[in-house]
Amino acid sequence: MEHTVIFQPSGRRGKVEEGKTLLQASHELGVDIEAVCGAAKVCGKCKVKIEEGYFEKFAIDSRMSNLSPLTEEEKDFLTQEEINNSYRLACAAEIKGDVLVFVPEESRGAQQVVLETGKERVFNLNPAVKKYYVELSPATLEDHRGDFERLREALHEKYELPQNLRIDYFVLTKLPIILREGDWKVTATVWNDQEIIMVEPGLAEGNYGVAIDIGTTTVAAYLMDLNSGQQLSKKSMMNPQVRYGEDVLSRITYSMMNEGGLQRMHEAIIDGINTLIAKMAEDVNISMEQVQEVVLVFNTAMHHIALNIEPKFMGRSPFAPAVKESLDIKARDLGIKINPCGNIHVLPIEAGFVGADNMGVMIAEEPYKQDKEIRMIIDIGTNGEIDLGNSKKMLCTSCATGPALEGAQIKFGMRAAPGAIEKVRIDPETLEPRYKVIGKEEWYPDIKKTDAKGLCGSGIIDVIAEMFTAGIINKSGRFNKNLNTPRIRRGEDGKYEYVLAWAEETSIGKDIVVTQADVRAVQLAKAALYVGGKYLMEKLGVDKVDSVTLAGAFGSYIDTKRAMILGMFPDCPLDKVVAVGNAAGDGAQIALLDKDKRVEANKVAREVEFVETAIEEDFQQRFAEAMPIPHGKDEFPHLQEILKEVEERTKKKAG
Amino acid sequence: MEHTVIFQPSGRRGKVEEGKTLLQASHELGVDIEAVCGAAKVCGKCKVKIEEGYFEKFAIDSRMSNLSPLTEEEKDFLTQEEINNSYRLACAAEIKGDVLVFVPEESRGAQQVVLETGKERVFNLNPAVKKYYVELSPATLEDHRGDFERLREALHEKYELPQNLRIDYFVLTKLPIILREGDWKVTATVWNDQEIIMVEPGLAEGNYGVAIDIGTTTVAAYLMDLNSGQQLSKKSMMNPQVRYGEDVLSRITYSMMNEGGLQRMHEAIIDGINTLIAKMAEDVNISMEQVQEVVLVFNTAMHHIALNIEPKFMGRSPFAPAVKESLDIKARDLGIKINPCGNIHVLPIEAGFVGADNMGVMIAEEPYKQDKEIRMIIDIGTNGEIDLGNSKKMLCTSCATGPALEGAQIKFGMRAAPGAIEKVRIDPETLEPRYKVIGKEEWYPDIKKTDAKGLCGSGIIDVIAEMFTAGIINKSGRFNKNLNTPRIRRGEDGKYEYVLAWAEETSIGKDIVVTQADVRAVQLAKAALYVGGKYLMEKLGVDKVDSVTLAGAFGSYIDTKRAMILGMFPDCPLDKVVAVGNAAGDGAQIALLDKDKRVEANKVAREVEFVETAIEEDFQQRFAEAMPIPHGKDEFPHLQEILKEVEERTKKKAG
Repeated sequence: MEHTVIFQPSGRRGKVEEGKTLLQASHELGVDIEAVCGAAKVCGKCKVKIEEGYFEKFAIDSRMSNLSPLTEEEKDFLTQEEINNSYRLACAAEIKGDVLVFVPEESRGAQQVVLETGKERVFNLNPAVKKYYVELSPATLEDHRGDFERLREALHEKYELPQNLRIDYFVLTKLPIILREGDWKVTATVWNDQEIIMVEPGLAEGNYGVAIDIGTTTVAAYLMDLNSGQQLSKKSMMNPQVRYGEDVLSRITYSMMNEGGLQRMHEAIIDGINTLIAKMAEDVNISMEQVQEVVLVFNTAMHHIALNIEPKFMGRSPFAPAVKESLDIKARDLGIKINPCGNIHVLPIEAGFVGADNMGVMIAEEPYKQDKEIRMIIDIGTNGEIDLGNSKKMLCTSCATGPALEGAQIKFGMRAAPGAIEKVRIDPETLEPRYKVIGKEEWYPDIKKTDAKGLCGSGIIDVIAEMFTAGIINKSGRFNKNLNTPRIRRGEDGKYEYVLAWAEETSIGKDIVVTQADVRAVQLAKAALYVGGKYLMEKLGVDKVDSVTLAGAFGSYIDTKRAMILGMFPDCPLDKVVAVGNAAGDGAQIALLDKDKRVEANKVAREVEFVETAIEEDFQQRFAEAMPIPHGKDEFPHLQEILKEVEERTKKKAG
Repeated sequence: MEHTVIFQPSGRRGKVEEGKTLLQASHELGVDIEAVCGAAKVCGKCKVKIEEGYFEKFAIDSRMSNLSPLTEEEKDFLTQEEINNSYRLACAAEIKGDVLVFVPEESRGAQQVVLETGKERVFNLNPAVKKYYVELSPATLEDHRGDFERLREALHEKYELPQNLRIDYFVLTKLPIILREGDWKVTATVWNDQEIIMVEPGLAEGNYGVAIDIGTTTVAAYLMDLNSGQQLSKKSMMNPQVRYGEDVLSRITYSMMNEGGLQRMHEAIIDGINTLIAKMAEDVNISMEQVQEVVLVFNTAMHHIALNIEPKFMGRSPFAPAVKESLDIKARDLGIKINPCGNIHVLPIEAGFVGADNMGVMIAEEPYKQDKEIRMIIDIGTNGEIDLGNSKKMLCTSCATGPALEGAQIKFGMRAAPGAIEKVRIDPETLEPRYKVIGKEEWYPDIKKTDAKGLCGSGIIDVIAEMFTAGIINKSGRFNKNLNTPRIRRGEDGKYEYVLAWAEETSIGKDIVVTQADVRAVQLAKAALYVGGKYLMEKLGVDKVDSVTLAGAFGSYIDTKRAMILGMFPDCPLDKVVAVGNAAGDGAQIALLDKDKRVEANKVAREVEFVETAIEEDFQQRFAEAMPIPHGKDEFPHLQEILKEVEERTKKKAG
């Protein structure tokens, strides 16, 4: 006899044979309910709420219910309140009549998770590493299968894992002990439906992974719960390779000029990664060996150096990388101290200067899924990467931005840390600033002692844009010499500078100033980005973009209006310019939590067309034209009013 | 226009388009010609002899020949004599008319090789490790594929290797340097059509592998040329684990009783393997890193201990192994010092006491390919394994033989080495022996000073059988007390012994004797084998076997007639009893040279049915019945005459 079962919120319904459990029904009807123990009634994960056909008061009287009575096992896992609210374990409740079942968020198998960083991102929770609980029939004289074959067959029967599932050699060496220690009940950790990478006695649920964004300057790491998709901890550190060179080229040079230099830099970043993982593991009180997988993103040079791959050919034409597609490397082979049988997944790179970090941005932002809108995505770092296009075609390029927008090569530049000025406004009349420091709630001058130490990326963009709109610097970036304020003065080099913070406000006992050289450095950076973006637009055959996305690990988030006033990218409706923070890091986390995104990354990496801009004949001319603020020639219809106002103000002040 | 091309000796023929090379023609017609460089004309391997359609005297005049003229490249690789005999390189000679081509043995691709050890074995040369020479188009600004992708695509285009070919991480780290060092011409070493495990600049031909048979007592290693299938060197050593226990059970006990005991024994055998490989590599003047693969066979306990897998559950019922199927382990993970990216292939095991060594015997002897004949294969070692059956069904069992037949637990037993008595005859009238010592050509008494030190396995079987046929011992194994010869006397233990060699003949200054205890030890061993064999026959439902194959690493080869007289196996026509030496070692070499045999091994291992004999109710009774020589009850029709003669002689002497 069959009964109708309906699952909410998916709305799936169908006829199910009497006597089957709700979990079996869910499989038949294609509803994914979490059941870590595979219906052994030992995990309690498959809680569902019965909306119709079963009520608590009838639970003890099976004649009045469309489900079998509440079992002892269920009472162990359900609170009294849950029992009162008609909760059951799907693995235990058998169907005796029509029922309407609600599957709560936490019991849903193919769970969607939300990553809340710079932007809320929703994706499927489908990690490469999954845990499976199985109970094996013990070995007997009649059934003398090998331990591994016994485990594999049980995993196949219960979870339909492939019959050619492999086992890591080092897991195999311990398998006989663990099977018997767990009295033939074990939890197998399986990577990518391919290989058993850990076996633990009994039911073991903790399942952890780490995503790491290795920037030239900063390394950011995220510890994730692979069962829930939640971020459990995050840590960042200065890239320990900085001592061998501040930028990519100087590190490549270091490896060429110093015997063992590559090995040294490789070991430095691996040590750094291990330190970050150790700290995060300590935070949540797990051992490093409980981390099963690490996903890495980085630019191509960091990719090669971190992986101990000779980088020197990346530093000269034709800039061919050693490998483009994604890699899966045993943790032990790379020296990363998670489960030694665990996996290190490296996202693919696109071209000589467009790395796995940009692939992280791509899979987080998914511009290739947009059918009509032309999106421009700019990932701002020491090397800037720009992506342009939609589902029909995607282009990418890289720009030698330099580290100015990350706070380096700026007199008082610093990374985003307490003490960094992250937002700046300048009164166009008085030329007095207001500014906000990381770690303080209130703005100067609402507080006088701000303990400022310097400027981080977003502060730098803010202050240069504000100096321009306030008429302190003109379109070409030169200081207006006619302004009567103590904040504008000649510095040690004899050139003009703007005093953003007086020594007594700071924690460094020095005036924090913005120099003519700082202005020039920012102009060079923004011109590089602008020219790159324009080349892509021409290649794609468009004369405007529908939206601009600013990504970047640095600082808090960029002020999009001021970034456009600076001319970091071509004109675009202001409400369509968004800053999303470290999208590369987000992409690394997404690839860790959803293995299908790795397949997508490889596909996209192959399809995106790389445009080499530095070899274009008119590059130098275009670069020069892009130096003025916002641009020497190009129109910015969406900034029309502001620019007009600024022009008049500047004229007046220059008097 | 097409021409007829015929290849000898295969006889394949067909029409081929004018202008194609002979190598292209061979591909079209399914003839496998060796061309290591893939037709780049740099290896000179594809020499063929033109039997018709081309003659040396016309070679310089293309109008008179059905092939294009001899090229400069060919002159570099062909001797003048070869040119005179109409040899050409198949990759260079283009077809212009009908030709008859002979492909010499050394140019044939899918070469058959002959392993000549105890037995001549013919099989296909198809190693898992193959080398491929490719010339890549260099990276340019327009073609900025990754180095690995470039190499993989070239291997796919030229050799049809799979498009998802992987690369070992450690090979990838060096790839950029090697590609450029070789000026984009490299040789890739590919394992199992799956993974690149080495890349060398230019054309690199040497391709080496090692097969190792790890016995409880002796380890035998063979260095093989994977291109030709030839054995280049072989070495053996005492298993260094012997210091932790002489037999399998005492080693398992050692690992249970001593903290770190397993790790110590594991390291001991890995060190031993590395020593053997180092010596063999030195022999042929190659580096250990040029060895690309190792195939291992061993019994199940040695399997677990060598691989550092907990063996204790193998030592007690139900004797379940950790794994049965074959394994492929990275050399670096196991600490075997060949190419660290190379593979260690472990043949499958069949049951708790039937190991990979028996699988070696199986794939060497292939009893499962026999359609009618019922074959019994006995692998004699400290643990004896017996296989019985044919293509319809195969059974196997193991017998606790003890080490007597390997020379251990025998008063003057020793392993097969110079000084070991390997053959013995005893004159039934005088009771004087003749014997042969390893390292000496002549027999005693033709030489008086034999420098004998002891008896190896084949000598032990010989001497006990001869003592029986000469009437020195009777059917039950007891000494005949009525014999009047100084060679029969009471030993230190007060029991009878037979003096096989007087002290002055030996190099040890002591009489070499065969004691009553020695006779008993051999009886126990042979009874175990006999009972095991009979159980298998009953399970299979046969009352006689068509042939018996004796395998075993020990000594030179067993005298089959004397082995049957002893009663090591049931009656069989004497001309159908053969001794094949170390078939397990042969099987390891065959699996190294022909990867298809590995697939066959896994299939057979799954299909062979293991029979547990020690748990049979009447085991003890049967064992007692099998102690007499040749047996207490069973008939031996094929020994009828001999046994009758012996009976009469013994009666007379006992008289």
